[in-house]
Amino acid sequence: MQAENHKTVLPTLIRTMDRLSDCVSVWKTAGDRISVVPTMGALHEGHLSLVRAARENCDRVIVTIFVNPAQFGPSEDLEKYPRTLESDLGLLAALEVDLVFAPDQSTVYPDDFGTWIDPPPLARRLEGELRPGHFRGVTTVVLKLLNASRADEAWFGQKDFQQVAVVRQMVRDLNLPCEIQVGPVIRDSDGLALSSRNRHLSPGERIQALALSQTLRTAAELIQDGERDAHVVMTMMNQSLIDGGVSQIDYAVAANPATLETLQRITFPVVLLVAAKVGATRLIDNCLVE
Amino acid sequence: MQAENHKTVLPTLIRTMDRLSDCVSVWKTAGDRISVVPTMGALHEGHLSLVRAARENCDRVIVTIFVNPAQFGPSEDLEKYPRTLESDLGLLAALEVDLVFAPDQSTVYPDDFGTWIDPPPLARRLEGELRPGHFRGVTTVVLKLLNASRADEAWFGQKDFQQVAVVRQMVRDLNLPCEIQVGPVIRDSDGLALSSRNRHLSPGERIQALALSQTLRTAAELIQDGERDAHVVMTMMNQSLIDGGVSQIDYAVAANPATLETLQRITFPVVLLVAAKVGATRLIDNCLVE
Repeated sequence: MQAENHKTVLPTLIRTMDRLSDCVSVWKTAGDRISVVPTMGALHEGHLSLVRAARENCDRVIVTIFVNPAQFGPSEDLEKYPRTLESDLGLLAALEVDLVFAPDQSTVYPDDFGTWIDPPPLARRLEGELRPGHFRGVTTVVLKLLNASRADEAWFGQKDFQQVAVVRQMVRDLNLPCEIQVGPVIRDSDGLALSSRNRHLSPGERIQALALSQTLRTAAELIQDGERDAHVVMTMMNQSLIDGGVSQIDYAVAANPATLETLQRITFPVVLLVAAKVGATRLIDNCLVE
Repeated sequence: MQAENHKTVLPTLIRTMDRLSDCVSVWKTAGDRISVVPTMGALHEGHLSLVRAARENCDRVIVTIFVNPAQFGPSEDLEKYPRTLESDLGLLAALEVDLVFAPDQSTVYPDDFGTWIDPPPLARRLEGELRPGHFRGVTTVVLKLLNASRADEAWFGQKDFQQVAVVRQMVRDLNLPCEIQVGPVIRDSDGLALSSRNRHLSPGERIQALALSQTLRTAAELIQDGERDAHVVMTMMNQSLIDGGVSQIDYAVAANPATLETLQRITFPVVLLVAAKVGATRLIDNCLVE
């Protein structure tokens, strides 16, 4: 009997919309406040920090794990994206998650599926410009997951700054009765923003990747020291990435956090955003300066 | 005091999303089942039959009245569409509606509004082909109204057959926790399907307009008598409209009710659909044959 005490109890794993609906119906009838944390799995401390925050706020916590094909472009890393369900469930066991919803592709997108979200103009900048269709896929799956889980609140990481902005506007525009909550960027002790894609970095690339967070830190300091010419800041950001050995830069900009329009003059709040490839791995990072 | 008893108590009229949200929050907390009947006002017995059905099914009934500009094309009758809020409220007073939500345009589409529904392929046929963007506007406003009213069920009239099919698929595709309910086409004693646009018909046009329902009846009889060649049925439908004095025909077809694809051979169920202009007024009608 004593061994039982050491057994890890994995969270309930649900694969179908019908079973999810049955569970949340019971919770809604009981008046429970439901939180959902949408993820693509390959969980790290960034995700877990969101789950802990959700746990504190709500009666019920649902974590969804779904690698959403609709948000990957044809030349992107859908196949290579890490899938680690078993260890994800182990990590969530310690956090008292009420259920994990991990549907397969045909559950989320059945053969006759045909309704999509056409996201706001905000979604055409930065990531949207480089990854056409990305936010159409993101907003559609997020809306589906929020609806299916009937969540009162949903948690996202600030690391995906533009995603948060686009999802927030979708929720506002479509009058969804769901609060969007945002957790901070979680970093390794050396500053690298946690990402499921970090596991693809070789030891040498892991060091190069530090250029992203270092660049953001330096640019934030430059602004705090009084620099107001956004062009100067952005030139520094690009140079800093190159100096750090990162030359495949998608963007390195200072932008208006509400519209994501690149600034001419620094006004506050300002968000600094970088996206670059380190080897074959595309990384993003950002820093809000208020 | 006695005069008070004869005073009509109008339903609560709400104009803003915040007040709507406050009301439905209280109802949701109490565990009430909420029904919504989305309308563009100019209410007639077709709408009222939906409200009565909703009243029987649910604890709370919300009627929305909003002439949705997003579902009108640039050359369509947005300006001319009848707006009769006061008499609408009078009609609803007798039906114990809990509230009427009649937002203005800037409440539904604020300046920074930018998220739209891209409806399923079904929405590109028939009405969608003739009225590009129509169902994008319909699905977007319906989703907003269902979300804002947090409805457990929503009522639509079979008269807008394609609209019902498109909304049903949107709700399924986006996993909305809302049941779509459908009320039958309501007709005048002479067969004309009720429509807010009928009030634009002159007495002569009113008689011509009967060709639509008569054509559907004759086509249904032809099928019930054994005709299985859809081309024969559709040729008859077009000729019958012309014979009845209706020559501006948009379509007169026999279609698969699930996909709205025009049939070659009649299979069951089949839906017969007509759309035509009578004078300056565009009318639609349909008949499901099972």
